[in-house]
Amino acid sequence: MSTIALQTLSGGSDAAKRLAARLGLSCAEIAVHRFPDGELRVAVAPATDTTILYIPLDQPNDKLITLLFAAEALRRGGAKRLVLVAPYLCYMRQDAAFHAGEAISQRAMGALLATTVDRIVTVDAHLHRTPDIRSVFPGIEAENLSAMPAIANALAGGIAPASVVIGPDMESEPWVSEIAHRLGLQHTVANKTRHGDRSVAISFADPGLLSGRPALLVDDIVSSGTTLIAAAKALTAMGATAVDAVVTHALFPPAMLAAFTEAGIRSVRSTDSVPHPTNAIALDETLAAALRRELTTTQLPETIP
Amino acid sequence: MSTIALQTLSGGSDAAKRLAARLGLSCAEIAVHRFPDGELRVAVAPATDTTILYIPLDQPNDKLITLLFAAEALRRGGAKRLVLVAPYLCYMRQDAAFHAGEAISQRAMGALLATTVDRIVTVDAHLHRTPDIRSVFPGIEAENLSAMPAIANALAGGIAPASVVIGPDMESEPWVSEIAHRLGLQHTVANKTRHGDRSVAISFADPGLLSGRPALLVDDIVSSGTTLIAAAKALTAMGATAVDAVVTHALFPPAMLAAFTEAGIRSVRSTDSVPHPTNAIALDETLAAALRRELTTTQLPETIP
Repeated sequence: MSTIALQTLSGGSDAAKRLAARLGLSCAEIAVHRFPDGELRVAVAPATDTTILYIPLDQPNDKLITLLFAAEALRRGGAKRLVLVAPYLCYMRQDAAFHAGEAISQRAMGALLATTVDRIVTVDAHLHRTPDIRSVFPGIEAENLSAMPAIANALAGGIAPASVVIGPDMESEPWVSEIAHRLGLQHTVANKTRHGDRSVAISFADPGLLSGRPALLVDDIVSSGTTLIAAAKALTAMGATAVDAVVTHALFPPAMLAAFTEAGIRSVRSTDSVPHPTNAIALDETLAAALRRELTTTQLPETIP
Repeated sequence: MSTIALQTLSGGSDAAKRLAARLGLSCAEIAVHRFPDGELRVAVAPATDTTILYIPLDQPNDKLITLLFAAEALRRGGAKRLVLVAPYLCYMRQDAAFHAGEAISQRAMGALLATTVDRIVTVDAHLHRTPDIRSVFPGIEAENLSAMPAIANALAGGIAPASVVIGPDMESEPWVSEIAHRLGLQHTVANKTRHGDRSVAISFADPGLLSGRPALLVDDIVSSGTTLIAAAKALTAMGATAVDAVVTHALFPPAMLAAFTEAGIRSVRSTDSVPHPTNAIALDETLAAALRRELTTTQLPETIP
């Protein structure tokens, strides 16, 4: 029998433990020590033939270096297969050089991770112009799972039937329509124009649709929060009776919740892809469904003829 | 003619400009924008056939990601040869797994940089058990230059002839003896035992040597400062009349200078490998001597038969 286990960063979220429990695996911790000069010392738990690394890559740079070091130690320790579970996958948004000289971070990240692990599993990666995540990670397996089934399940039964599901931009159409379909609600998406990190303009093709109805704002990533605030203000101006928000990846500082409230947002819920006070929707079953084949593959006796 | 230029991080030190000027090259800036969620956007200046990247890798993790992104943009922009000048090279100290599961950071860093650039030039890399820096960077050129000639030049004429050059541990013997030889002084090295990031014990084989004489403490890296403080206290206890320190890489927080003064250290001088208030010794000529062959190689007409 070959061996399989999960490892995650020490002090990380409980989401890794939930996923390990659902898969029937142990959940060990990767110890990370920070020296005064900003360098890291990384120590992994004993390697298994297949080692699943659960690392949400928000605030990513230190975690990327940690991942490189952990992979070095695990390979040297005998791991034959490294599966990176990054429920939030960093640097997927910069997929083109928008100005001369700009690095295509997505491409550099793809090359880096493809030489580090054998498989990448993520959720709602923000792939604007990249239809297939496999093209980002040459030569390895990669899957971009949808959080929408988990989100729809979590919301089912708690949403007023007159609610309209709102996407903040054209790109959100696929997941907004999926949520709306699953919940039996109407939906629409806004036109968004970005003027900088913290400045966007939002408009809707059918401003009358929202009048007198509650709005459920759905987005994949909330980072600066600017989009959410602009959308909430636009919805309130159009007569929405309430604005609730649900997001896959909550990257914004928790202190920003006050600004959301002030902008008229009644509630913000997020998946546990990134540890955050707004976490309300667990992704363990979504991830476990994609990872179960690791168990059947790796736990077969090695001597099968 | 092929082209060559130097690029460095925006807001970086003047050391890159001094080096570029000494080589007769332009010094362009790499723009780094930090998003609220901790991701970076990197934009390089136009690529040249040979591009020298001057990046001191103190507080390294963000800078390593920046380097990866810059290399992606430069290669895509047509750069044929990337030369990394990292006057301080990070992660060279962890060159073995001292406890089970520990990553060998030096090895992971070697593999990463060897796939990113074509040549690495650094100064006084802290290579305990690695006699040749080329073994750290498989398949590329790598040179570990000595700061000791530049340090000795800077100190010459300003040191009392009775001074003793002191190394804080056995490993410092080569550079301490070089400095002492160049300045015509006696030298000795201490026995150092480390008990943690911030706790070390220092002792000397010949405690009588220091009595009534000034001490010049020389070290390659001052990071936590613990070693320097312990050494200064030991020297003062042995009757040294003054303790001055000179280091290649000043990685410690500038606020620590007060603690050095309190421990009896009269002055601390460092090379400009890392921008720091103690910088007093320029490395531009040391680096330029190693980089001049880039000029002769790359500026030859490409049509030579």
